[in-house]
Amino acid sequence: MCDDGLMIFDVQVEVVLRPGIADPAGSTIERSLPTLGFAGVSGVRVGKSIRFTVDATDEAAATAEVGDMCARFLTNPVIEDAVITVTASDAGSGGS
Amino acid sequence: MCDDGLMIFDVQVEVVLRPGIADPAGSTIERSLPTLGFAGVSGVRVGKSIRFTVDATDEAAATAEVGDMCARFLTNPVIEDAVITVTASDAGSGGS
Repeated sequence: MCDDGLMIFDVQVEVVLRPGIADPAGSTIERSLPTLGFAGVSGVRVGKSIRFTVDATDEAAATAEVGDMCARFLTNPVIEDAVITVTASDAGSGGS
Repeated sequence: MCDDGLMIFDVQVEVVLRPGIADPAGSTIERSLPTLGFAGVSGVRVGKSIRFTVDATDEAAATAEVGDMCARFLTNPVIEDAVITVTASDAGSGGS
């Protein structure tokens, strides 16, 4: 809890390509692995993982703000989906 | 469970820059968010999220194979850490 009544939340946003969107990086990894001796790997998809902390009054407010952030800035909603994980930060609760 | 006694596992590898390594993409996001009206965001770090399925005899074998894959191919161990999550695939257990 911060002095101004805000809590600190740890956020992870996983940005993944939507199903059906071509993933050249994933395809390249998948083709390369057998030549390195790694068998049985399939369905490789490469996305982004964005981690940060955000100050908000509660978890619902934090999730709403991050969702808005994803739609406007962090993802391209035409080709990407965002998986948002919000957890109360240990540092935030310890400092109350 | 596959016909040959192998199970299917869903794998997520999160590739994150090690602490102290400069993250220009994260810094750019962090500087940009306040101008879009998103306040209170700090510590932005951008990494990669790689998802795939792997066939293995058990979870320990799958985790070991993915760890080796990360060290040799998926990450640059000098500047990056890998967070590996292995879970038994629903598709795999359902098909047994």
